[in-house]
Order: sequence, then C-alpha cells, then structure tokens
Amino acid sequence: MNLYDFIVNVPDFPQEGIQFKDISNLLKDADAFKYSIDELAKFGKELGANLVMGPDARGFIIGCPVAYAMGTGFVPVRKPGKLPRETVEESYSLEYGTNTLCIHKDAIKKGDKVLIIDDLLATGGTIEATIKLVERLGGEVVGVGVLIELEALKGRKLLKDIAFKSLMKY
Amino acid sequence: MNLYDFIVNVPDFPQEGIQFKDISNLLKDADAFKYSIDELAKFGKELGANLVMGPDARGFIIGCPVAYAMGTGFVPVRKPGKLPRETVEESYSLEYGTNTLCIHKDAIKKGDKVLIIDDLLATGGTIEATIKLVERLGGEVVGVGVLIELEALKGRKLLKDIAFKSLMKY
Repeated sequence: MNLYDFIVNVPDFPQEGIQFKDISNLLKDADAFKYSIDELAKFGKELGANLVMGPDARGFIIGCPVAYAMGTGFVPVRKPGKLPRETVEESYSLEYGTNTLCIHKDAIKKGDKVLIIDDLLATGGTIEATIKLVERLGGEVVGVGVLIELEALKGRKLLKDIAFKSLMKY
Repeated sequence: MNLYDFIVNVPDFPQEGIQFKDISNLLKDADAFKYSIDELAKFGKELGANLVMGPDARGFIIGCPVAYAMGTGFVPVRKPGKLPRETVEESYSLEYGTNTLCIHKDAIKKGDKVLIIDDLLATGGTIEATIKLVERLGGEVVGVGVLIELEALKGRKLLKDIAFKSLMKY
C-alpha cells in the first residue's frame, strides 16, 4: 500500500513556511488506517513494549489503536489543565511555538517498557519531552513510532539509540 | 468485567461542582481498555456503521480504536484552527463552558453511516453539534456510543431516536 497517496500537503499551515502534512484522508480510509496501525503495532510488539503513550491530540489518533492492536493499555500525554490528578510536566519547543506536556504521576511504574506513538516527527521536541516524562517515573522508552518523519528537521537525533520507525519520510 | 473499578471520581475538576470521571486507569489497563473498545465496536457493527467519528480530544482516545476494531476509517472532530483545509463548523455549550467543533468539508459523503464515539455523555452538546455536522454534509448518524453516561444531565434526550450505548452510568 502506498500511504503517500493519502497525504495532502497544505502549504503555510498553521503559519507561513510550514508545509503541513494532512493525514485526514489516511484516517478516513479503512484500509490505509488499518495498514498503518498494524505496521506500528508490529514494531511495538517486536520491541516487547507493554504500554503505549501518545501526545495530545494527534498522538491519540494513532497511539490508541496501536495500543489496542498490541493488546496493551494507553497513557495519554496531555496539555496542562486537562489531567485531574497529580502530574509531572515537561516543557518543550515544537515546530511552531512552545508547549508543556503532562502525565499523571502514577501513569508509569518502574520497569514499564513504553512505545511512544505520534503522527509526525518534526524537530522531535514533543517526543523528547515525552521520553523525559517516562524516565522521570522510572519507565523505559523502548521505541518511537510515527506515521511521518520530516527528515530535514533532524528530530531523530534527539532519540539517540531508541528504536525508531516511520511509515513515510519527507 | 466491572469497568466502574477503573473510574476515579475527582470532585471539583475542572471547576467547582463538577464531579470529573477520570478514565486514565481504564485506558492504562490492557484488559479494561480492550473490553471497552470491543463492546462499542460490536454496537457499531450491529448498526452497520461505515465510519467512526470522535470529538477532540478524548473522543479520539476511544473512537480511533473502535474504528480500527470495526475495520472502518475515522474522522476527527476538531477545535477551530486545527484542520488545514475547508471546514464546516458548529458551536455548542458543554458541561463547563462553550466550544466550537469543525470537520473538513469533504470528511463525510452522502450516505455515510456514522457511529459517533466519545468518552462521556453529559449535557449532550458536543454530540449534538457533531450530529449536525454529519447531517449538513449528507451523512446519517446511526449510533452514539460512550464509556460513561451522566444520567442526571439528560444528554440522551438530544439524541432523539438515534441508537445509544453507554458502558457505565452515573
């Protein structure tokens, strides 16, 4: 299956100079959606991950079905003010702007092997902050999987030796 | 499986008087997560839905794996400014505050049979706005499924004769 057929490039969104990769058509197509999820779930199973995490909000769209397909639970990584109990936080800079991510303090237990899933790897700030959250709570990130990697932004460098899989590269 | 065991009631979040139902422990538990998704997917299959929609952001967490389990695609219902192409919009009031929801104008085609999935049915404003979006584009909402129904808020009245399933009631 050629997943690139389902990606729409939208220039200058959300701001000038950004080439936004719109995944709406991929999500809406039952076969392309299933194929993408199955590929990332296979990657996570091979790594022995017992938990999937994804950042708010497109990380939920891909990460939650990957967790379901792997037979694991899911931990949402959220923006501030959304989680009702005690959290740990990390701030990061992303392709356009800055942000802070939070997870519940009891979301990860020591020894958890975590697969982080997002739609896109750009500068890698979102993923790097998520790795820090996991490690602060004693978990280990065994892999990072995304639909799309923007290679020119070199986000993969921040992942060091963590296993990485992207289904499409631009 | 007793799903209620996985729900944490958080009083006065996000504001005084709201009894917030925290689903984090349900999502993190592989069995409770799988059971919940399978129950909602079974409901959607019985209704013949060919597409799942869920509102930003907890609707993604439940709706995307339901779509995967049903073998359909998924349409995210987003807050303003997130979708890069031409959208249709509906404003609505929710349990605490107001909001506007958007979908791409080409997200639904005539004759689509849509299952709407969210974590919670409260006053029903979010779901009602989503139904309007579907109908404006010529689709039909054949069912609404949620993890949790807050019965006292009577959101179900807004659904009229659309099939409805909740896995927990408070």
